[in-house]
Formats: sequence, C-alpha cells, structure tokens
Amino acid sequence: MAHSAETMPAPAEVTTVCCVGVGTIGGGWAAYFLARGFRVRAWDPSAEAEPKLRRLIDAAWPALTELGLDEGASRERLTFHTDLGEALEGAQFVQESAPEVLELKQELLANLDAAAAPGVVIGSSTSGYSMTEMALNAERPERFVVGHPFNPPYLIPLVEVVGGERTSAAAVRWASGFYERIGKSVITMDREIPGFIANRLQEALWREALHMVDNGEATVEQIDRSITEGPGLRWPFQGPMLTFHLAGGEGGMAHMLDHFGPSLKSPWTRLDAPELTEKLRDDVVEGCAAEDARAVRELVAERDRGIIALRRMIEGRRCESS
Amino acid sequence: MAHSAETMPAPAEVTTVCCVGVGTIGGGWAAYFLARGFRVRAWDPSAEAEPKLRRLIDAAWPALTELGLDEGASRERLTFHTDLGEALEGAQFVQESAPEVLELKQELLANLDAAAAPGVVIGSSTSGYSMTEMALNAERPERFVVGHPFNPPYLIPLVEVVGGERTSAAAVRWASGFYERIGKSVITMDREIPGFIANRLQEALWREALHMVDNGEATVEQIDRSITEGPGLRWPFQGPMLTFHLAGGEGGMAHMLDHFGPSLKSPWTRLDAPELTEKLRDDVVEGCAAEDARAVRELVAERDRGIIALRRMIEGRRCESS
Repeated sequence: MAHSAETMPAPAEVTTVCCVGVGTIGGGWAAYFLARGFRVRAWDPSAEAEPKLRRLIDAAWPALTELGLDEGASRERLTFHTDLGEALEGAQFVQESAPEVLELKQELLANLDAAAAPGVVIGSSTSGYSMTEMALNAERPERFVVGHPFNPPYLIPLVEVVGGERTSAAAVRWASGFYERIGKSVITMDREIPGFIANRLQEALWREALHMVDNGEATVEQIDRSITEGPGLRWPFQGPMLTFHLAGGEGGMAHMLDHFGPSLKSPWTRLDAPELTEKLRDDVVEGCAAEDARAVRELVAERDRGIIALRRMIEGRRCESS
Repeated sequence: MAHSAETMPAPAEVTTVCCVGVGTIGGGWAAYFLARGFRVRAWDPSAEAEPKLRRLIDAAWPALTELGLDEGASRERLTFHTDLGEALEGAQFVQESAPEVLELKQELLANLDAAAAPGVVIGSSTSGYSMTEMALNAERPERFVVGHPFNPPYLIPLVEVVGGERTSAAAVRWASGFYERIGKSVITMDREIPGFIANRLQEALWREALHMVDNGEATVEQIDRSITEGPGLRWPFQGPMLTFHLAGGEGGMAHMLDHFGPSLKSPWTRLDAPELTEKLRDDVVEGCAAEDARAVRELVAERDRGIIALRRMIEGRRCESS
C-alpha cells in the first residue's frame, strides 16, 4: 500500500508519455501531449486506430498551434505500437482512455500494472467508474488515479483527479501536479463520487431536458437556445454559484439564500432540493467569499465585460461565416 | 376573451414603452429600451427608485454603446413618474418587473389593466408565476403575457414568452414579434410550466450543486470551476442537446443514445432520468437534426473554433487586467 514518492519521476522531468487507447478522448490527449512537447507512445488494439489517430491529431493541430505550442512540440514525436509492452517502454506517465467497459478496464489496468515501470503513475480518463473498482486486479493499485478530462481534451482545460481506496496520496498529488504543470485546470477530489463533479451537474441538466422533451414541454431547439442565448453566456466567466451570488445584488449569496431560499420548494425542476439548513446556507455563503472576495459590484462589472466581449466575438464569427 | 389584433399597434410603430418597477430587472429593461431608441416612461413606488435607476442606466450605457445603439437612443428619453396613470400615458407596450410577490402582482396587473390604453400588450418579467394566476383580477386578461428575461436584460438576449389560460394567441404573437424586433432571442412556449425552460435547466444544476455542498462532495469553488473550465466553455456555442449530439461522434445523437443510453441509469445525479423509450429517442434525434442538420464533423469544427476564440479572449482579458 505504501507508495514511495522517490520512485516517481519529478513531473518536470517527464519527457515521454504513453497513451493507451486512442479514440476520441485518448487521441485528444495524444494531440495535447504532443503540443506540450512530449514524446507520445500510443497503443490501441483496433486495426484502424493508427490512421484515425493521425487524422485526429492533424485536425487538432491548427487549434493547438493557435493556442500556442511548447518547445519541442512536434507531430513527429508520436510513435504507434501494437504491442503494449513496447508502447510502455520509457514512458514516465500513462494516460488510459479505453472504452467504458468495466471488465475490459480491470483487465487492462492489471496488464498495465505488470508492464509499466515501477513508480510510473497511471491516469484513467474514465467518466463512469471509480478507481476502486477498476484497479481491482492490479498488484500495485497505489499508483492508479482517475484523470477525467472533458471533450475535446486538447481544448477544454478541466481535469478531475481522484484516487481509489487503495491509491496512495502521493500518486494523487503527483498526478494533480503533473496535469497542472502541462496547463490543465485541475480539481482534486478527496473522495470518489459517481460522475465526479462536472458530469453530475451536466447530467442533472441533461435529465431535466430529457424529461421536458418527453413531456412535450420544450423542443430540442428551445432547450439548446435557452442555454446558448441565456445562462450559457455567463458560465464561461462565472459558475453557477457565483452567478447566484451576483443575483443577490450587493448582499450577494447571503441575501440570495435568505430571500429566495423558499424558491427551492418551487416545482422548477423534478429534482428536489436539500433542506436549506443554517449550515448549508453558511457553507455556500462562505464558499463564495472564499472563491472570490471582491464586492458584487466589481464581479458584475467583470461579468458584463466578459459577456460583451463574448457577444462581440460571436457576432464577428457569424459575419465572417456568412 | 376575444382580442382583436387591430387594436394593437404594429410592433414597428411602437415608440414609447412603460417600465413598471425598475429594480435590477426592470431597470435593465429600461436601459435596453433606451438603447433601442424608445421613449421610456418609468414607474416605481420606492423613494430611492429614480436615482438608482439613473445610476443603473449610466452603468449599463458603455456596454450598450459598445454593442451598438439604435437611431434615437438617448438617456434623455427617460422620464420617471410616481403616478401610475401618468406613467402609462402614451405607452404602447408595458414591461412589468415588480417584486415576486403573487398578491402584489395580482393587484398591480389589475391596476395596469384599468389604466393602460386598450390594445396595449402588457409583458411581465416574472420568473416564478404563471400568467393564469397573476392576471386573476384583470378585466382584460387576454393582453397579459409573460416576457421573462435573463439578468442582465440589457446583455442577455433570451426572452421566454408564454401566455396564461386567458391570454389571446394574438397577444402572445404580438409580444414575440415585438421582442424579436428589438433584437431579443425569443422562445415562445405553448404552455405554462413552472420555471419556463432555462430556469428549469439552471435550477436542476443548482440543486445538484447544493446537494454536493451539503454532503461535502464538492466545494463552492470546485463546482464553479468545473463549469467555467469545463462544459461552460462549450455552452455559449452549442446547448446541452447539441453537445451530446457531438459526443456521439459521426453517428451523432442516435449513436449517443443507443450506446450510452444505459448511463441514464447511473447514479450520476440525484435526478432520475425518464425511461428512454423509442419515441423519446426519436424525438431527441430528430430534434437535433431539425436544429442543425450539418454533419457532426462540421459542428465539431465550428465548436472548436468557438472555444479557441473564447479561450483566447479570456486569456487576453486576464493579461489586460493583470
């Protein structure tokens, strides 16, 4: 169970990573690692995998170039392997992005564990399984972490990091440090919960939307436009909590919860709200202050500048394409 | 019950609107109407209302100027009134944005009905009540519609329009036409549902977030960052339905639902999903095609260009402010 940090390379010394499974997500990771200047060793058992991977990387490269390539970034640094042991040679980090089939993941992780050099941390892109269940057959479960990206991994910064019950704290720290070093926005969770964080929020919205279509309450187009022309214009700048912090006016989240708390009893979604206890109220109010302590007035001004810039950018793109 | 379209002015002929209640939402509407070149007659019973309104409009004006003012746009075209009858003189449209207290709205709407010229359509900014219950005491309920904006109304295009049981179809059509004419993105709903559309979706996400804080599963900051650095970067360009359409790869939403449908049974949120019947599946698949019939490949390219432009814009703003 012990996992000695000494056996792990320092994140800054990593020059070679292995991408195991290179479909949409794994291929997106490969493109991102190449843009950050790594040597990437790819493995995938599918016959079509290599040409598909190269097409995906070629398609992503202009975007990655526009966002800025790191020193040494080159598509030439990709090698493709059909033998897993060969793919892992020299790899100092492994990103696994195999299909979401539990038995397959369990077997694959055991094989990775047997073949990868000791001390190498292995991250999984899974969006559905806990590391506790996936690493069931691994001899060294302490080095396995979830590193859950968002599609497309070469453009969306978010990575959710969480270990399983037998993962070492050192491996979780290492993975978070490594992803941060390569420019990702990392959320390190201290416990496994199904769907992690972003997918739980996204899934709640998606299920409410499906209910609405199911009941003829809204069309697909209306649902999408209600977001793209509504709250979707605020969410790149301020998340759902700060959004309601601002909705409280100068009194912020405290005013919002104290005055609009009763609306949690309204049938505005099929999801029941938790009881708004004193503790929950305080946790949310203090959480907003901890996240951004500036006055609501300043946050409003910042949000507005962001929305204006976004709307002008969207307008500009519409004019270009018409 | 009949509502003759002849008695309503053509939306293009409206030059004067009345804003009833000018707090954050009503004041935002007033600023927007002024920027579109209307004469705005404001009414609010609060002693502090007029100076607050003028400050709000002054604060919004640079943003409105940047997005483009219409001919005749001027802050000089605002008049403030303490007498409701006087405020309504000459108004060809009324936007009501009083506090969310049902009895207050019922009384106010009855008063507006008695004082406003016949044929004038009256829109309500309510985010919580149905027009059926709000217009209970109005003599001419046929002219009352909900015109629900998003905060801030001068920057967010979305307006959800829906009538009550006694609203005329002509008034709903008129309001939708008027809001569209002044540059709003209008969703016309054919039935009243609590929370309309965008707020239902937003509320489902918000309640899931509150549960997570309540259970110590995520902090306020983690929740916000999981959106701003994750799906929030996609939602200004493609809503939740098209987002999953793209997640299905070349097979689109059909592939997504046929292969990932079982994940609706996963405990990824506290909200149960509807049964994925053949009809619901087809409605969602066909809804995506109706919304945007282009190949997924093209939609992916467009999303990626949008995210790149957004990320560069956000980076640029960070550099400016540091």
